[in-house]
Amino acid sequence: MMRKEEIQKQIEQAVRDVKAQNPMAGSITNSVTVNFVANAQLAVGGSAAMVYLPDEGEFLAAAGNAVYLNTGTLLPIHAESIPATAQAVQKAGKTCVLDPVGIGIGAVRTGILTKLKDCKPGVIRGNASEIIALASLWGLSGTSGTNNTRGVDSTDEVSAAKDAAVALARWTGGAVAVSGEVDLVTDGKVVAHSYGGSHFMGKVTGCGCSLGGVVAVYATVASPFIAALAATAVYNLAGQRAERRVTAPGSFQVRFLDELYLATPEEIAQNPFTLETL
Amino acid sequence: MMRKEEIQKQIEQAVRDVKAQNPMAGSITNSVTVNFVANAQLAVGGSAAMVYLPDEGEFLAAAGNAVYLNTGTLLPIHAESIPATAQAVQKAGKTCVLDPVGIGIGAVRTGILTKLKDCKPGVIRGNASEIIALASLWGLSGTSGTNNTRGVDSTDEVSAAKDAAVALARWTGGAVAVSGEVDLVTDGKVVAHSYGGSHFMGKVTGCGCSLGGVVAVYATVASPFIAALAATAVYNLAGQRAERRVTAPGSFQVRFLDELYLATPEEIAQNPFTLETL
Amino acid sequence: MMRKEEIQKQIEQAVRDVKAQNPMAGSITNSVTVNFVANAQLAVGGSAAMVYLPDEGEFLAAAGNAVYLNTGTLLPIHAESIPATAQAVQKAGKTCVLDPVGIGIGAVRTGILTKLKDCKPGVIRGNASEIIALASLWGLSGTSGTNNTRGVDSTDEVSAAKDAAVALARWTGGAVAVSGEVDLVTDGKVVAHSYGGSHFMGKVTGCGCSLGGVVAVYATVASPFIAALAATAVYNLAGQRAERRVTAPGSFQVRFLDELYLATPEEIAQNPFTLETL
Repeated sequence: MMRKEEIQKQIEQAVRDVKAQNPMAGSITNSVTVNFVANAQLAVGGSAAMVYLPDEGEFLAAAGNAVYLNTGTLLPIHAESIPATAQAVQKAGKTCVLDPVGIGIGAVRTGILTKLKDCKPGVIRGNASEIIALASLWGLSGTSGTNNTRGVDSTDEVSAAKDAAVALARWTGGAVAVSGEVDLVTDGKVVAHSYGGSHFMGKVTGCGCSLGGVVAVYATVASPFIAALAATAVYNLAGQRAERRVTAPGSFQVRFLDELYLATPEEIAQNPFTLETL
Repeated sequence: MMRKEEIQKQIEQAVRDVKAQNPMAGSITNSVTVNFVANAQLAVGGSAAMVYLPDEGEFLAAAGNAVYLNTGTLLPIHAESIPATAQAVQKAGKTCVLDPVGIGIGAVRTGILTKLKDCKPGVIRGNASEIIALASLWGLSGTSGTNNTRGVDSTDEVSAAKDAAVALARWTGGAVAVSGEVDLVTDGKVVAHSYGGSHFMGKVTGCGCSLGGVVAVYATVASPFIAALAATAVYNLAGQRAERRVTAPGSFQVRFLDELYLATPEEIAQNPFTLETL
Repeated sequence: MMRKEEIQKQIEQAVRDVKAQNPMAGSITNSVTVNFVANAQLAVGGSAAMVYLPDEGEFLAAAGNAVYLNTGTLLPIHAESIPATAQAVQKAGKTCVLDPVGIGIGAVRTGILTKLKDCKPGVIRGNASEIIALASLWGLSGTSGTNNTRGVDSTDEVSAAKDAAVALARWTGGAVAVSGEVDLVTDGKVVAHSYGGSHFMGKVTGCGCSLGGVVAVYATVASPFIAALAATAVYNLAGQRAERRVTAPGSFQVRFLDELYLATPEEIAQNPFTLETL
């Protein structure tokens, strides 16, 4: 197991590499927050490209080292394009970042998310309810089968999703990030708890989606666990800093994007987290 | 007929209930302003969920007390999903908020809006030209048949839409809100005129759409008339306050979201309006 | 050939006419930046309307003097609606502004862009790689066939796209605008180099797309060359001014929209540019 200092060093390196290389992480994502996802990816130093069509998803899988897949606002074409892209990413040995937004709503979404089990996404990111629901949908042991998602919001605490997150990470061999008051990132062997953020992040749509997009940017240059933890750290840091400057969510989102851009590799690596060995 | 004080009391209660309960009002809405709709819904204390597919619209109808339907940027799937969702909302005895954006453009839109007549949306919100065009499309008496919509903008004054608004409200048994320099809200028995707002609201896309989304949030806890008037009041208040702080529309939108969040139940209830009995 | 003073006079008149007439320029554009496109069009004094369906694109071609077509995030319906709209615009003798975003990615995009050759879009706007790729796709002489697009970003310098831009403008009989550090606008006879802008414009998604939308607004009242140069000028001016006020891209985008709104016709006409006769 990596020591904390080693993890911090790798986070710092990943952030630095992204700022230097401007790597592209393509996305198939929802129409509500797609602009925020792209701007967050650009703010941390990456490059964005969003598509809907199957062969364009396959292009993204070939063109970049990681792809972000988000099931937020599904159209009929997504039933084909999301699984096709996930398979192309897997075949290319690259990293797929999955955000199972809205899991439990509708037959198309359930069909897509069921198919993605065998694609073993390198990073799965969601709120507690989504992570619990996905582990349950995939029939992974240690998960209860209860689904407390309500639309796109979580009704569960992060701690309640720990077993599900670990089970998912062990299945994929990658990492799982659970967003909440204290965020949890695990690779199935170790659990990191990342601190910071802001209550305003629940008052701005897309803080979760755009975090997923930023995980994908870092995953172009780092392991799933480091990418997920680095992205979670910069979100916690930027959220905390932005909150100090504003009194309401409109200004918060603007300042949050600013802070994503301004955060240095050292600061992101030093954002507080604790480690727990499983 | 309710006295003004009783209306103010109910507005205050609706705003308070939304802030306390964080109710979800799902939407099928356009891709131009969907992010603004969601952020406005979150700013006033609600929760947002946007979908495209028919069975997902039906899920929203089951999951929340109100659904927002906006015909802004139609895709082929909307020909099925918007009517199916409106019917599901009606069957469940819940409130549908309809925003007939772009009425008069294209066969799909006309087909959808024609079908919605029998779904009797609890609240219809639009600019003057849209309200006149919808009453005309539905063949309601007292309306002329002229259609002065130009793309998505109004070319009519709010006062010119009064008869159409009343006719629509009497048909649906709900409420109609007409946005303009002085906004009009009617339940077919009384007409309220709501004051405030900003000239910048015509310089930021989605002030109308997001108002519809906020009406839906309030409609989860209040009658159509109170929901429409409460949402109109908070928009007029936030618009006026935001304008005082800024000199241009980019900053206006940010500050407007802030003011939506900061407005208290008392302030919203006290925003100026007059009543006229029909 | 027009003298510089004559060009400046026409730019000033175009900006003034748009502010006075609030002309609509409809769009078929991508979901990532559609909100920014609409808000930029509104900020300069125009009106926006976005659609997806073929008959609605034809409505836009009939309703306004110019239409903006952007191939950014294609859905299956776009294979029909973009060419149908371009043909309707051409038939009506109006101006089509084409932004070949993502050229080279996927069969649908290539099919659409191939078809648009015969529609001779009045203005083509893109980054250097996109302009080179489009001239190559259309088999225009003086272009190499190399395609250095990477997702939606350019990997070429503006100067490298000069021959391709001139060849495209000569084919269409309209104008071509190439965005980069120094922007290039040509009508095939003269090349204008427009100065200003900000490094933050590459850190905010949609500065290119929204520029295309603003070109379309100016094209409702001016020639393709004047419209392209006026839009490029206001972007360079607003970008430079916004950069002075901010330290990061979130605030930059807000301030940039403000500056688009605040720039006067005289200031836009006086933004620095040089002319080169071919």
